[in-house]
Amino acid sequence: MRLLTFQTASLEPRAGALEGEIVIDLAALAAAAGRRLPESAGDYVADETAFAAARDLLGAHRGAWPAGTAHRLAEVTLRAPLRPGKIVGVGLNYVEHVAESSRSLDTAKELPTRPVLFSKPATAVVGPGEPILHNAALTEQLDWECELAVVIGRTARGVAAGDALAHVFGYSITNDISARDQRRSGQWFFSKGQDSYAPLGPWIVTADEIGDPQDLDLSLRVNGEVKQKSNTRHMLFSIADLIADITSGMTLEPGDVIATGSPSGVGAAQVPPQFLRPGDVVELEIQNIGRLVNPVVAHP
Amino acid sequence: MRLLTFQTASLEPRAGALEGEIVIDLAALAAAAGRRLPESAGDYVADETAFAAARDLLGAHRGAWPAGTAHRLAEVTLRAPLRPGKIVGVGLNYVEHVAESSRSLDTAKELPTRPVLFSKPATAVVGPGEPILHNAALTEQLDWECELAVVIGRTARGVAAGDALAHVFGYSITNDISARDQRRSGQWFFSKGQDSYAPLGPWIVTADEIGDPQDLDLSLRVNGEVKQKSNTRHMLFSIADLIADITSGMTLEPGDVIATGSPSGVGAAQVPPQFLRPGDVVELEIQNIGRLVNPVVAHP
Repeated sequence: MRLLTFQTASLEPRAGALEGEIVIDLAALAAAAGRRLPESAGDYVADETAFAAARDLLGAHRGAWPAGTAHRLAEVTLRAPLRPGKIVGVGLNYVEHVAESSRSLDTAKELPTRPVLFSKPATAVVGPGEPILHNAALTEQLDWECELAVVIGRTARGVAAGDALAHVFGYSITNDISARDQRRSGQWFFSKGQDSYAPLGPWIVTADEIGDPQDLDLSLRVNGEVKQKSNTRHMLFSIADLIADITSGMTLEPGDVIATGSPSGVGAAQVPPQFLRPGDVVELEIQNIGRLVNPVVAHP
Repeated sequence: MRLLTFQTASLEPRAGALEGEIVIDLAALAAAAGRRLPESAGDYVADETAFAAARDLLGAHRGAWPAGTAHRLAEVTLRAPLRPGKIVGVGLNYVEHVAESSRSLDTAKELPTRPVLFSKPATAVVGPGEPILHNAALTEQLDWECELAVVIGRTARGVAAGDALAHVFGYSITNDISARDQRRSGQWFFSKGQDSYAPLGPWIVTADEIGDPQDLDLSLRVNGEVKQKSNTRHMLFSIADLIADITSGMTLEPGDVIATGSPSGVGAAQVPPQFLRPGDVVELEIQNIGRLVNPVVAHP
């Protein structure tokens, strides 16, 4: 399933499933069948019974959607697919990005021997098409990073790598925006955690439909120009290893998101360095998921 | 008001107010008056109307609590007063701790010119009396830090320092536990964000009852021995300045917590260094709030 959150002029944000170019309103589909299902996409991530019921209803009605349950994708507004509990970010998880970061961002030249973990708050999340805020009073170094987002579906604590992927609900795209000049004594939380610094979407592709999550092309364009291009097979620490490492000390809960790290090609490493400005458009694409596009807008 | 979360053998965790040595069940008090109020303490933090109604009911019934609404403090189990949305931690916010950290923890000798911000996830929170987990497979350097916790009551975005304290619901105590040897390329999130690394409590003292939050004695004892002793007047960045700085880029929401930094006397800076071991008991005290005590227990 491609699970998303959408709204229309008359509907508050609610869970939908993408079927081709049609968005199916899951709660409305349930109601049409005399059932009751949640309105929030996060509830389908956390509740396997609700998710299975939605999947079954989609299967039963595919091609003949009950009145009032189907909307054209082009006619709805997508929001971030869910509000995460926590976002665990992973730094320096692609070899060439480690090298470029050591040249441009004061990080170590050596490959990390353990995942470099940081976090972003839920308040940083915006959805497809929503602005990335450029606050000229705070930063001259607003930068991009295209990352595969892993959405947790089952509580994970002390999970072995071999069991880790069973805890994944699905996958999405996130742009790990940074104000490089807002690191605080080296800590990344404020430089990466400001409002709008975690665009997420356009939807969550469930694990059964992603293919091999360690073999997905990913790329990022700024104003149409390719800046990043890699494949998730080049991660230093695989998704399973990341989940095992994180949950050795920290419980992951349904709805938590892991931002699995950026390949090379960030703005700080361009020659000369290039940063985001109001008017820019950033477009991220990951194979089997889709595209996440956000404009950069001057902070009001 | 001293707002807390408690449970008993027959009651699930729920909001209470401490009156002397008596805990008043706020939802039960409302029900006894034919009203309906929330069961979750977080709802009183976020909802000024519910909070005002609870305060009025306490005033109306003080000294003659309706049957079933009052419990002796000694007979209930306190839990963390709330589950924060996000916890924003502040590093190096007391001068002498900056000095000791530069000697023992590879941080800079100079006073920071901007607040050093990091974060802990809600999954790190435990309540009074709950164990701090010592995982020998992960750390040999489990350390303590006594901190004033600021609980946000009103959404704050772009707030000037002069208006900042109006956004504070109240104050509590937090122990900013760290596994010093789990910093990842200098990032503190995993070293400070593991399960049980954010003891919080024993309750929240509302802003109107705290006195001057920048003139509170705070201290920490390990197994009865004083390790930290200072006063919140020695913060480098005041609470108001922290809120202004954080909200220059990041929205603070009701229920978010700021851990305002630790005075000197952490374990890493003892000569020789001293770290927490199973069997230890850590006791934090802040003037006008109370005491937060947690045992250190071997990770199962």
